[in-house]
Amino acid sequence: MTTAHETVSKYWTICEARDWAGFAALLAEGVVYDLPQPRQRINGRDAFVRFNVEYPGDWHVTVERVVGEGSHAASWVRIALDGEDLPALSFFEFDDFGLIVRITEFWPEPYDPPAGREHLAESY
Amino acid sequence: MTTAHETVSKYWTICEARDWAGFAALLAEGVVYDLPQPRQRINGRDAFVRFNVEYPGDWHVTVERVVGEGSHAASWVRIALDGEDLPALSFFEFDDFGLIVRITEFWPEPYDPPAGREHLAESY
Repeated sequence: MTTAHETVSKYWTICEARDWAGFAALLAEGVVYDLPQPRQRINGRDAFVRFNVEYPGDWHVTVERVVGEGSHAASWVRIALDGEDLPALSFFEFDDFGLIVRITEFWPEPYDPPAGREHLAESY
Repeated sequence: MTTAHETVSKYWTICEARDWAGFAALLAEGVVYDLPQPRQRINGRDAFVRFNVEYPGDWHVTVERVVGEGSHAASWVRIALDGEDLPALSFFEFDDFGLIVRITEFWPEPYDPPAGREHLAESY
């Protein structure tokens, strides 16, 4: 069977290619896409595919890291969108058929360095 | 040898216990701790241990997910600090001795749901 690592690598390749039929084929019908930061959830394959199809802007994906273990995986990708380059961190869960049943995704934004760590940290 | 998954589980248990000698023992001498959001980096075991020892506030860690594969791992934890409950996402790299040589860590913050996805997303 395809490993969690392989499926997540394919997931991002397929996203970048806008191959939405191939994308849908990686997802369980009841997949849940969870965004803890805005506290929003998209329920089901049809809605989640549509969310991606409708996502605005000319975005592009670069994969930084994929880690897979059993029925779990995590990825760190960079999304280039409108001149910005933002990281996205995703945690995947798989069902017994190797389909994705849950994605929890985070979109961290830049922030100013907190005071009090200048003696330990180097800025870049 | 201890797996990447086991070491990362231990890393968070040890953080919560403030066992800084045990913490240091998981790290390579040249470990790099990278925070892409403020674009800061802490170089070396001594500085990184000190960064954790000095970290202000009565923080507590709850592990949500650890995924390990070969010389890589990822974790998603929640940090309770001053009444807040913030996720932290960490990507770990290991050397040939099973010591942590690099951690890239993200601290995503809450944001308001963007407009235009109300027909697909459920708020919680």
